[in-house]
Amino acid sequence: MSKTPKGFRDLLPEKARKKEDMVNTIISVYRRYGFLPLETPVVEFQKTLAPDVTDFNLFHVHSTRERKKGNTQELAMRFDLTVPLARVMSDYHRELPKPFKRYQLGEVFRGEKPQKGRYRQFTQLDADIVGSDSIYTDIDLVLMMHAVMSELGVPDFTIRVNSRKVLNLLPEALSFDGELLKSVLIVLDKRDKVSEDELAKMLLELGLSDEQVKKLIDFGSLSGERKYVLEKLKELFSGAESFNQVADELTSIDRVLSDLGKDNIIFDMSIIRGLGYYTGTIFETTINEYPEFGSVYSGGRYDHLIEKLGGPSVPAIGASVGVDRLLALLEEVSSEEEANEGYVVLSYSDEFLAQALKIAESYRAKGFVCDVLTSVKKMAKQFEYAERKGYAKAIILGEDEMAKGVYLLRDLKTREQEEIVFEK
Amino acid sequence: MSKTPKGFRDLLPEKARKKEDMVNTIISVYRRYGFLPLETPVVEFQKTLAPDVTDFNLFHVHSTRERKKGNTQELAMRFDLTVPLARVMSDYHRELPKPFKRYQLGEVFRGEKPQKGRYRQFTQLDADIVGSDSIYTDIDLVLMMHAVMSELGVPDFTIRVNSRKVLNLLPEALSFDGELLKSVLIVLDKRDKVSEDELAKMLLELGLSDEQVKKLIDFGSLSGERKYVLEKLKELFSGAESFNQVADELTSIDRVLSDLGKDNIIFDMSIIRGLGYYTGTIFETTINEYPEFGSVYSGGRYDHLIEKLGGPSVPAIGASVGVDRLLALLEEVSSEEEANEGYVVLSYSDEFLAQALKIAESYRAKGFVCDVLTSVKKMAKQFEYAERKGYAKAIILGEDEMAKGVYLLRDLKTREQEEIVFEK
Repeated sequence: MSKTPKGFRDLLPEKARKKEDMVNTIISVYRRYGFLPLETPVVEFQKTLAPDVTDFNLFHVHSTRERKKGNTQELAMRFDLTVPLARVMSDYHRELPKPFKRYQLGEVFRGEKPQKGRYRQFTQLDADIVGSDSIYTDIDLVLMMHAVMSELGVPDFTIRVNSRKVLNLLPEALSFDGELLKSVLIVLDKRDKVSEDELAKMLLELGLSDEQVKKLIDFGSLSGERKYVLEKLKELFSGAESFNQVADELTSIDRVLSDLGKDNIIFDMSIIRGLGYYTGTIFETTINEYPEFGSVYSGGRYDHLIEKLGGPSVPAIGASVGVDRLLALLEEVSSEEEANEGYVVLSYSDEFLAQALKIAESYRAKGFVCDVLTSVKKMAKQFEYAERKGYAKAIILGEDEMAKGVYLLRDLKTREQEEIVFEK
Repeated sequence: MSKTPKGFRDLLPEKARKKEDMVNTIISVYRRYGFLPLETPVVEFQKTLAPDVTDFNLFHVHSTRERKKGNTQELAMRFDLTVPLARVMSDYHRELPKPFKRYQLGEVFRGEKPQKGRYRQFTQLDADIVGSDSIYTDIDLVLMMHAVMSELGVPDFTIRVNSRKVLNLLPEALSFDGELLKSVLIVLDKRDKVSEDELAKMLLELGLSDEQVKKLIDFGSLSGERKYVLEKLKELFSGAESFNQVADELTSIDRVLSDLGKDNIIFDMSIIRGLGYYTGTIFETTINEYPEFGSVYSGGRYDHLIEKLGGPSVPAIGASVGVDRLLALLEEVSSEEEANEGYVVLSYSDEFLAQALKIAESYRAKGFVCDVLTSVKKMAKQFEYAERKGYAKAIILGEDEMAKGVYLLRDLKTREQEEIVFEK
C-alpha cells in the first residue's frame, strides 16, 4: 500500500491548516454579504454533466453491483460546481429565494491524463448570484471580492473589470465583420504570452487593416484608472450607437466604487476571460508584486449558461477562487513569524499527567489552543514535538515544580520562563 | 436533467448552513485541543481500500481515457477516513510529528443498493491520535468530546465509557470458554433491541449456565456513576488476576474526570461497539431526552488496525461524529427563535441602489451580515426575500427617506422602525 494514485494528492496538516484558514476567511466574508452554502453530491448522472459529449474528461463511477450488471455508464464525478448549480436551479427553481445567492466549496474531478503540476482532483470555491441582471448586482459581487482580498491580508491587489458588452461592440466601432470577433478575441487574449509585433501579425492574418490592428492593440492595452478608461472608450466607440447602455453600466460601476474609495478596482480592456459563456461584466484579480501568479480570483456574468445547461432561463453572475493558486500566493507573501500560537503541556513523569490534563483544560476553557503530550518521552523529544507543531509556549511540569505546586511557562522563542502557581 | 442519482442528495442553503456551523464549531474545539486537519483524495487505489475483498461495496472510478483502454479496475472512492489515515501513516510515518493528532472532514462513498434513508455519499468528521498508548491520551480525547458537546449547546448529554479490556476478561471472571466471547458480545450488544428474557435465552443457547447468564446480564446492565461501577467491577472480577491493570486505567480515568467535575461521563458496561478492531477504551455519546437518536459521537482505541490496514505498527484512538445524525439532533433541540440575525437593504427605486450598496458596505465593515437586494421588485416581494433568508432587520430606502437623507431601520419581528441619518 503506498501513496496516492497519479494526479491525486494528500495535504498534510501544516498545509491543510493554511487552506482551511483561508477558505474559512473567504466564507466568513461570503456570509457577511448574504450568501449561504449549498451542497451537491460529488456523483451526478453522466447525462447531467455532459449531455452532448461522449468523449469528455469525465471520471465514470459504478458500484461493484452495477459492474456485475454491466451498467457502468450512468454515473460520473462532477468536474465543476456550475453544472450542479444549474441542476439545482432546475430542480428547485420555485422554492429557492430569488435572487439565489449561494457559495459552494467542493472537490471537483477531471479525468485528464495525469501530468506534473496538474491535479485530477482539486478544490473549487464558487460564489454566484442567480436571478438578477442589475448592474448593481455585479458591483456588489466585485465589492465582495474586494472585501475577501482585504480580509485575507493580500498586499496590493488589483481587481480588473471589463465587460463582454464592450468587446461585443468592437466590430461595430472598428468596422470589421462580426464573424471575426471570436478569432480577434482569441488573439487579444494572448497578450500576456506574445510580443506586440506577434499580436499585430496574427491580427493582420485575420484580414484586418493596419489601422484596425493598431486600434485593436491600443484598445487591448487600455487599462487603469476607471474614469480615464471610460473617457478613452467614449472616444473609441463614438461611432457605435449601442455604446450608450454600456457606458451607463460602466459609469454606475465607477460611481459606486469612487464613492467607496475602491481605487484598486480598475477598468482593464485586456481582460477577455476565454470565449465561452460570459455575457456582461468580467473580472480578474492580480497581485501587483506577483504577476506570475496570474489571476487568483475571477469570474463574470453569464446570463444564458444556466438555461443552456438545462436549468431555467435566469441571469447569473459568479466569482471563483483559484483555491490552490491563492493558497500558494498566501504562503509566498506571509511571513514565517506570524503562525506561532498556542500552548503545549510537557511533563517529566507520567505521574504528572493528570495534572497536565487539568492545566490544559483550564487554558482551553479560556479559548486558547492547548495541546498536551500524554505519552511521556525524553524532554528533547517533547520540545521537538512542540516545535514541529509550531506552538509559542510550553507549560512544563517537572519534579521540583510539582512539589512546589507550580509549573514553568516557557516562551519557546525567547526561552524566557516564569513559574505559575496552579491549583492542586 | 433532473435531480440527483438515487442515494445521493443536495443540501439546500438553510440546512447546509446549519451543517457548516456545526462542523465549524466542532473543528474549532479540535484545534483548541492541538489537532490539525488532514486532506486525502476522494479517489484511492482500489487495492489500498480493499486489498483482500473483491466483492466489496466500493464505487469504482475510471476516466474516459482509461475506459477506452479497458482499464477500469484500478481506482475507487474511499468508503471511510480510517483507511486513508492508515495509508498516510504508512506513506509519511517518519516525517509526521508523533503522536499524530489529526481531524479529517470529508465525503465518503458506499456503493450499496440505494434504499430509503440510506445515502451512498455522506460526510464523516473523524479525530484520531496515532502513536500513543497512554490512558491519558484516551482521557484527553474523551475530554475533547465533552468540550465539543458542550460547545454545540447540546442539552444533557452522557458520554458512556467502557473498555474492551474489561470485556476481554469476562471468560476468565465467569469461567467460560474464551472462544465463546465473540458470540457472547454479539448477544449482549442486542440489549437495546430485545427483552432481557430473550437475551437470557440467546445466552443459554450458547451453552452458558444459568448463573453465568445471570452474571452476564447483570454485567451488561452495569452503568452509572464511575466510582460505583468501578466498585461493582472489582467485586465481579475479584477472581481475575489481570483485572488489576484494567482497574488502574479506569481509576485514572475516574480520577481526572472527578477532578474536572465531569459527572456526565459515566462507565457503562453495555457499550460494546461492534466486534471489529477496538482494543481498549470505547465510548458512545447519547442525549438523555432523545435516546432514539442513539449514539451521535463514538469511537475507541484500536491499537492494531493501522498495521492491519498496511500502515506501521502504531497504537491509535479516535472519535467519529455522526454528522447527519448530530445535525438532525441539533435541529430537533434548537428553538426556532435563535437563528435570526443580519440585515438586508431594500430599495423602492433602482435610483437608490448606489446608496443601498454604500449603506450595506458600512454594516459589513462593522462585521454584520448585510445582504442587499440589487434588483428592485415590489416591496412585498422584497420583504418575502428578507423573511426567506431569515434576516432580523431591514434597512429601507424610500422616496421620502432619501429626500430627507435618512433610511428606515425596521425590526422584522416587532415591526418597530426608526429613522437613521446616512452620509450622502
